[in-house]
Amino acid sequence: MNAQTAQQIGADQDKLSQEALADKMLGVGAAARQASRAMAAADTNAKNAALLILAEAIEAEREALMAANKRDLKAAEDSGLDAALLDRLELTAERIQGMADGVREIAALPDPIGAITDLNYRPSGIQVGRMRVPLGVVGIIYESRPNVTADAAALCLKSGNAAILRGGSEARESNLAIGRCISGALQAAGLPATAVQVVDTTDRRAVGELLRMDKYVDVIVPRGGKGLIEYVAEHARVPVIKHLDGVCHVFIDQDADLDKAVAVAVNAKTQRLGTCNTMETLLVSQAVAAQVLPWLAKEYQAKDIELRGCDRTHAVLADIKAATEEDWRTEYLDAILSIRVVDDLDAAIAHINEYGSGHTDCIVTESVTRARRFLREVDSSSVMVNASTRFADGFEYGLGAEIGISTDKFHARGPVGLEGLTSLKYVVFGDGHVR
Amino acid sequence: MNAQTAQQIGADQDKLSQEALADKMLGVGAAARQASRAMAAADTNAKNAALLILAEAIEAEREALMAANKRDLKAAEDSGLDAALLDRLELTAERIQGMADGVREIAALPDPIGAITDLNYRPSGIQVGRMRVPLGVVGIIYESRPNVTADAAALCLKSGNAAILRGGSEARESNLAIGRCISGALQAAGLPATAVQVVDTTDRRAVGELLRMDKYVDVIVPRGGKGLIEYVAEHARVPVIKHLDGVCHVFIDQDADLDKAVAVAVNAKTQRLGTCNTMETLLVSQAVAAQVLPWLAKEYQAKDIELRGCDRTHAVLADIKAATEEDWRTEYLDAILSIRVVDDLDAAIAHINEYGSGHTDCIVTESVTRARRFLREVDSSSVMVNASTRFADGFEYGLGAEIGISTDKFHARGPVGLEGLTSLKYVVFGDGHVR
Repeated sequence: MNAQTAQQIGADQDKLSQEALADKMLGVGAAARQASRAMAAADTNAKNAALLILAEAIEAEREALMAANKRDLKAAEDSGLDAALLDRLELTAERIQGMADGVREIAALPDPIGAITDLNYRPSGIQVGRMRVPLGVVGIIYESRPNVTADAAALCLKSGNAAILRGGSEARESNLAIGRCISGALQAAGLPATAVQVVDTTDRRAVGELLRMDKYVDVIVPRGGKGLIEYVAEHARVPVIKHLDGVCHVFIDQDADLDKAVAVAVNAKTQRLGTCNTMETLLVSQAVAAQVLPWLAKEYQAKDIELRGCDRTHAVLADIKAATEEDWRTEYLDAILSIRVVDDLDAAIAHINEYGSGHTDCIVTESVTRARRFLREVDSSSVMVNASTRFADGFEYGLGAEIGISTDKFHARGPVGLEGLTSLKYVVFGDGHVR
Repeated sequence: MNAQTAQQIGADQDKLSQEALADKMLGVGAAARQASRAMAAADTNAKNAALLILAEAIEAEREALMAANKRDLKAAEDSGLDAALLDRLELTAERIQGMADGVREIAALPDPIGAITDLNYRPSGIQVGRMRVPLGVVGIIYESRPNVTADAAALCLKSGNAAILRGGSEARESNLAIGRCISGALQAAGLPATAVQVVDTTDRRAVGELLRMDKYVDVIVPRGGKGLIEYVAEHARVPVIKHLDGVCHVFIDQDADLDKAVAVAVNAKTQRLGTCNTMETLLVSQAVAAQVLPWLAKEYQAKDIELRGCDRTHAVLADIKAATEEDWRTEYLDAILSIRVVDDLDAAIAHINEYGSGHTDCIVTESVTRARRFLREVDSSSVMVNASTRFADGFEYGLGAEIGISTDKFHARGPVGLEGLTSLKYVVFGDGHVR
């Protein structure tokens, strides 16, 4: 964990003993487990009512939310937080409206819970099907952005889960103010107020307790920088939905339509620099390198992207930096792109499976045969043909909203929406059937 | 971990240093990861060919397998293993035929890999769908039964995964002999022989290494006693598919058809005593207790089942033992049943969610309303209406075969067949689309 993250989840202002803190967190966990029973049985109308009341409360409490946020901002400025973090921490009128709108969008999504599928008679005469059910209690650990409090709460609520939210200490006042809107909305809709709990300690040990409460917490979703996610992955005894890196690739195949290739490769790198689905390494088939690289270099240079290339890239673009082994593994999140010329599709797939992070990778090709192989053999959460990696996103995929993007293969893979916060249990109907 | 399990996964006959052992296991992991790429891309014919060749090899090598097994049995007898373990360890001609038949059944199942579902156009013009893909490398840690070697290998192979199999040291010779059949079959079908590796050390530290190789192993499936599973759950850094306990319930509701209630409650307890889906606690609505309990007691006594009851059960069945708090949490795996009379459905659900293990629970009722509530509110991997808990099984559910039953909610819940060894990745098709 880097120093800055340690500070964010670390500011230790409370004076609880380890034991008292553990007791407090176990109390939070037990209340969440209890509330999760009611949430699992709650009907769609009650859940949607809570969401719509929450959206109204966020709008109605705009001034109070901004006042709480001002206190956080002042403390953060005094403690010397940098400008980027201050920006993420700030709740403007526009961002508050965005929170309310986001909650309404989640209310409008179909309720996944209780759906029974694949209900079939078996030879024995019993009927067997699967019912979609909540996971139970979801723990969210996040950093500066207070709007995550409303987003995450709304997704957990709609999917019938209870939530324990542990935001960054620098956003404590903002998060608690949003938390009050949430518990009020839950109560007004006849649901347990403890279905969403905002942990009100800035003690970093609370995170450690949360990660170990496997009796009360069914899954942890960390949202924040790599330091936070590595810390959570290393210490969690509870399952985690996460991605560590987005080292995404575009491969320009020998049969690429070069107009599409340039459009996709430029968009994937430059539409936004700091997102996890931004391309970090461009792979180019040696058959088209001499033709497409100068064209691409011009586009990238016009957008101030620094290029770093392998030897064969250098042979075409003489004036760029050399890429090192380290570059192939780096998520720049910045105006830098590494470029490698590869022999063919096999070399491209091998490169991606070796150096990629299993996030999102794209082939640009007109060849059905090679597209088909790329889709099957690249082991990433999203594999694309002739589309920008920037499309890897819950809204673009039609999930309505996402709680994160998973690069793990277990449980949920890729953008995680409501379905990723659920499980399937078996339901069996008989008429006194025995074996 | 109890002493017996420690012995089973413990016998330390090899003399490798910790470092040499770690290197050896990392070599196994790297080879498995490499082989998993080829397995993910393998077509169904190749996988089925390998399975059918394996089934034939098992039959053809019957004498050699029995000879290897005899050496294991002799060593086990010499070291004083008890009769139950010796029985599980033994490979009879019938069990060898059972292995071959099981492998052929898995060959006959549909191949889940590569299926693309939910492929829809999005407003942006891209098409988004999901492709079913293997998890990658599956680690199986198991105890005495050598037939698990063939079963688990066949399930992993069919689902396009590579497998690392680590059986009990007492079955080493048997497992290695089966392993030779498997690698021969893989090679004969043109698949990498290292797609299934039988770890050939009896050093218990190999298990610890396997549990920590999150770079090379995607999921661990422990199969064996509670001691082994607790050990794996505690030490794994890799995701685990498991169940610890099967504390299963039947609840006889006030509106139960009592003929069905008796049939289901007797079958659920007595059809087999030692399986995880056997009922351990019977819950009876107070409205029907006086009527149904004497009837049930007679049936159970005829089958030598010891009954232990709560105070209200005692009021009806005076001559049985008193149940303690401990009984409600106990998986007897034996001819013992605890019985509790409860006020109503709410009390039954509360008991199951408090004391159950989330495995399989059944309500016997003619009431649609109460059946509906039980199905929704009981938080177990299988919930049943008017059917014996003994039906909770991969074959009965139509999965064809199972690698285990999961009581976790994350990833797979209930009987786990081929699908539980797979994941879904997103596939995206565009025509040069950018954001």
